[in-house]
Amino acid sequence: MADTTHPFSQLSVEEIRTTAAIVSKLHPDANLIFKSITLAESAKAATLRYLEAEHRGLETRPNVDRCSFVAYYKKGHDILHEALVDLSTKQPVSNKALDRLLHGPGDLEEGVMIEVAVKKDEQVRRELENLQIPDPDLVVIELWIYGSDGKNDERRQYQCYMFSRDVNNPSEQDSNHYAHPLPISPVVDVMAGRVIRVDYLPTGSDHKASPPKPFKAQPANEYIPKYHKLRQDLKPLRVLQPQGASFQIVQDFPGIHLVTWQKWRFRVAFNSREGMVLYDVRYDGRPLFYRISLSDMNIPYADPRAPFHRKAAFDLGDAGTGLTANNLKLGCDCLGSIFYLSAVLSSSTGGVIEKPNCVCIHEHDSGIGWKHTNYRTDNAFVTRARELVLQSIMTVANYEYILAFHFTQAGDVNYEVRATGILSTQPIDEGLQVPWGTVVHPGVLAAHHQHIFSLRLDPMLDGYKNRVIYEEARPMDRDPVLNPYGTGYYTQSTVIQNSAILNETNKCPVGYKIMVPDFQKMVAEEGSFHNKRAEFADHNIYVTKYRPNQLYAAGQYTNQSRCGHGARTWSKSGDNVADEDIVVWVQCGINHVPRIEGFPVMPVEIIKVHLRPVNFFNMNPAIDVPPSTQETNQSCQISIGSLKL
Amino acid sequence: MADTTHPFSQLSVEEIRTTAAIVSKLHPDANLIFKSITLAESAKAATLRYLEAEHRGLETRPNVDRCSFVAYYKKGHDILHEALVDLSTKQPVSNKALDRLLHGPGDLEEGVMIEVAVKKDEQVRRELENLQIPDPDLVVIELWIYGSDGKNDERRQYQCYMFSRDVNNPSEQDSNHYAHPLPISPVVDVMAGRVIRVDYLPTGSDHKASPPKPFKAQPANEYIPKYHKLRQDLKPLRVLQPQGASFQIVQDFPGIHLVTWQKWRFRVAFNSREGMVLYDVRYDGRPLFYRISLSDMNIPYADPRAPFHRKAAFDLGDAGTGLTANNLKLGCDCLGSIFYLSAVLSSSTGGVIEKPNCVCIHEHDSGIGWKHTNYRTDNAFVTRARELVLQSIMTVANYEYILAFHFTQAGDVNYEVRATGILSTQPIDEGLQVPWGTVVHPGVLAAHHQHIFSLRLDPMLDGYKNRVIYEEARPMDRDPVLNPYGTGYYTQSTVIQNSAILNETNKCPVGYKIMVPDFQKMVAEEGSFHNKRAEFADHNIYVTKYRPNQLYAAGQYTNQSRCGHGARTWSKSGDNVADEDIVVWVQCGINHVPRIEGFPVMPVEIIKVHLRPVNFFNMNPAIDVPPSTQETNQSCQISIGSLKL
Repeated sequence: MADTTHPFSQLSVEEIRTTAAIVSKLHPDANLIFKSITLAESAKAATLRYLEAEHRGLETRPNVDRCSFVAYYKKGHDILHEALVDLSTKQPVSNKALDRLLHGPGDLEEGVMIEVAVKKDEQVRRELENLQIPDPDLVVIELWIYGSDGKNDERRQYQCYMFSRDVNNPSEQDSNHYAHPLPISPVVDVMAGRVIRVDYLPTGSDHKASPPKPFKAQPANEYIPKYHKLRQDLKPLRVLQPQGASFQIVQDFPGIHLVTWQKWRFRVAFNSREGMVLYDVRYDGRPLFYRISLSDMNIPYADPRAPFHRKAAFDLGDAGTGLTANNLKLGCDCLGSIFYLSAVLSSSTGGVIEKPNCVCIHEHDSGIGWKHTNYRTDNAFVTRARELVLQSIMTVANYEYILAFHFTQAGDVNYEVRATGILSTQPIDEGLQVPWGTVVHPGVLAAHHQHIFSLRLDPMLDGYKNRVIYEEARPMDRDPVLNPYGTGYYTQSTVIQNSAILNETNKCPVGYKIMVPDFQKMVAEEGSFHNKRAEFADHNIYVTKYRPNQLYAAGQYTNQSRCGHGARTWSKSGDNVADEDIVVWVQCGINHVPRIEGFPVMPVEIIKVHLRPVNFFNMNPAIDVPPSTQETNQSCQISIGSLKL
Repeated sequence: MADTTHPFSQLSVEEIRTTAAIVSKLHPDANLIFKSITLAESAKAATLRYLEAEHRGLETRPNVDRCSFVAYYKKGHDILHEALVDLSTKQPVSNKALDRLLHGPGDLEEGVMIEVAVKKDEQVRRELENLQIPDPDLVVIELWIYGSDGKNDERRQYQCYMFSRDVNNPSEQDSNHYAHPLPISPVVDVMAGRVIRVDYLPTGSDHKASPPKPFKAQPANEYIPKYHKLRQDLKPLRVLQPQGASFQIVQDFPGIHLVTWQKWRFRVAFNSREGMVLYDVRYDGRPLFYRISLSDMNIPYADPRAPFHRKAAFDLGDAGTGLTANNLKLGCDCLGSIFYLSAVLSSSTGGVIEKPNCVCIHEHDSGIGWKHTNYRTDNAFVTRARELVLQSIMTVANYEYILAFHFTQAGDVNYEVRATGILSTQPIDEGLQVPWGTVVHPGVLAAHHQHIFSLRLDPMLDGYKNRVIYEEARPMDRDPVLNPYGTGYYTQSTVIQNSAILNETNKCPVGYKIMVPDFQKMVAEEGSFHNKRAEFADHNIYVTKYRPNQLYAAGQYTNQSRCGHGARTWSKSGDNVADEDIVVWVQCGINHVPRIEGFPVMPVEIIKVHLRPVNFFNMNPAIDVPPSTQETNQSCQISIGSLKL
């Protein structure tokens, strides 16, 4: 099997099924719930030898182990297991039960099962009757990962928030139920498969939650177009690529795509947790990154009151970018000439989940790339900045994240997040305001929250031994000879845990600059579970020595996690990280103080991280981009007369 | 004249010429050098009455004074004068000589005159001979505003830096001379019209500047396409708008354009100093801004040594965005259906300078605007974010700035700056490195510098009395009842100099949020001339009470300025700025530590300021944008087979 796959090939349908069968045989008396069946990436040293052979064009390449990683439960039991299966020998390599405080993520089948359990629960029915909901069939259940507070949170549970669709428009299946939150919240024990209590939600300005008052139907607040008078004055804008796209995509091995575009060459794969993963990223033949992916995100909420104090989702670790990825639609989610990548993921029963069109690959025009006019000759030279975009969109219940890698012609790799979708809401007494949220509709509170993302970079800038330096500009001391006017400043570089690398030729720091927009770090206090669990959310950058099983910034298992697994913990190892094989964890985020303009659906909020070469190349890498010309671009000049006045 | 113009109409050709003639008559014995002949905006109270009548649709509108502002010199004298001319009565309203330390900006004719003076100067010729330049005809002179250091800088002077085109390719007029800086720098007294000394430049690592060694020809480093093997694999990407653009542009009065697009309505004008100015900006009929413009920028350099310690350009105050604006070319500087706006500016002789196509107005697609998928029904609703772009490009000798206002469908106004062009260079001894710059080519140093921009906002958010508040998210104190787990946080608003405005309905701060990327403030020490002169470069935001003659953040006259005029000084007035007619000065910037990838021409460096509604509208303003469909967008799906493998 190793001969016909690449080390980065994701598991095939057959490999997923084979793995499930092999692990199932270990427990002949149990039904298994598979939380994850995914590629166990082979040892880095072996993979690097393989890549060396690949880039030297050798047909014969070193053998690389091919294993699958499995996380599973025995049905009805609350102990998570991990196994490793050798796909060549078809034998289990390891199999173990984990600590009872470690929990696997949610999965689609489990979600359906829990919704059913809540709907038919007697206590829930009684509470809905007490609420005098006009139509219980309109009630919508939204599953929330339980979170942790150290109190009765050892078993795996869900906190369910409840909503009603618009009671005055019962046939509308896409009614925005977030405009009608209910004040009750059932808690489900997952292994028992039943509701264990129903919490009342505090709807006032203090922590008290009394048995709720009867439901009051509020006006609808719909986001779907048919309830709005749409603008009539938006004319079509099309992107035309008459000679097709400039990129090339090859599937030389199953489960992996090789992308080449404008001197870039990399592989892209797609897994359940991280969604898109880039491997072996090179520019003009020079290696830059061994692996890049979004590693996790955390969304802690500001409302201090139970049960909201546990709202702190890890949308990758608890759910998965891949698992929740949208099936992208031609002409809706992007413009121009588009290649769609599809993937298969594992299901909880050991089968597969098809993810068609989960990544779109296309180019876009990003405005002017560079320009200069020599005013003496009046000759202007201008190029446009074409970018290659790899985009994937995840829907995690209310929220959408549009995740994209952008490659530029100037050697930059950028990562863009667009947050959109619908605010997570809760009921609030009418007329009331609270300082931890915004009232976005009568009786509807959207609590403040943060979105904190962690991008994992495994660099190999001309080699896999790298270092991180930070550079600061400082005013020069006033000096009667050298700085007599106090105008001077200089840059100072500090190497993380070692002395400075200098480029042999020009004695300047060499490499890639991480440009990450400043953001508010985790606001919740240091000792809180929010803060302890999100082991990346307190710094822009963490640097750790590469270790094979450290792929996710908040640890392998985030569901009801405590702490002690993740970038913060790993960074305390004392490892030397200068001129070593290192991993850089780059954080960015939004402090989302909701505004009324974010309801009933949010205009995108954009964050962008740039990775930009600094003294790595010998000149502007985009110097050879052909000039922008009307002959190629065929723009259209309009005059006042041609506009309808 | 007032009947046939709008209060925001810029001066016509006739008005410029009339003004020049009226002012010239005040000095029958002198020739005048006009530094500025521009609209003196009428009193705000009167203009607001006019706007009220305009928006009520009244044909008869209050009379508004129409005056022109003039700054001028008598030829051969170093005292700047200011005059105000009433264009209705054709009479001078005021005329005065200014303090001898105030200096007007450069102008095109002056620049030509000085280049000629330097070229023919005997001492300069001797120095070039000593340098043994192979071909003096290839020498290029670059004029720099002299800057201030308090030493012999009272008269108006220029510091000229000198370069050579590639001596091995003498016929190339567009050779990148910044790759060949010369170590001599003539200083010109402007009024005398002649070189008063030739400075030697320090080329070592200390302050010493000795008579230079003979010129050594270095390899060329050209940016123009013909010297590069261009990429062959970039396919055309065209923007097609088959039904034309969605905006409408009306010239209902001369000298001003009225733009309407997607519920936006504003006027745009163009002047010599600020370039684009937006007036009377409204969304869905609600007033937002009385006036928005870029007000100034400062570029202080890090090299502490004379004469570089005076390199600190004010590219608006010393030169002018409008005066240096590019003539934009169809299909090169933007894509799609484009409207070009042209303008006339005053010349130094009292005539006009035509500025054809100095602003382009077009739409672009900015990716997904909002999206939500209801996972229960699998129905996805997605819109694309169309934006209206007003773009102008200025060339200030080596640098280009691409300046653009972006209007969104969600009520945002954004301001984007793209810095490109060529680094300002100086000679450095081969093999040497200095901490205040980067060696980008053999013998060529690009010193560190900052670009600090000041955007002037004159808001009228539902009225011209406004306030600025800042909002901070803070962790809530731990409290056994309300915040028992320490997870809570809240927002706290502080009003600048007064108590909080609250929206009547929802008790939330109401208005527009200023989202400005963090940047390194002026690095040069507080007491330095760099720091003192750039009266805006030390804070993200200044707030001042509106005063009619405070339009420019570093004062009316920046050329060789000292300090005492500008936002910092005005902010010390002690004025109440809460619920007053206020002006908000928003700063952003880049600390430009040059990298080799920025030579011989820089890939764009982008900064973006967002003005975003917060609880100002009742819901997402883009809720009524029609969904994105393949029928409209006509994208093209490509498969692996269709790509050339």
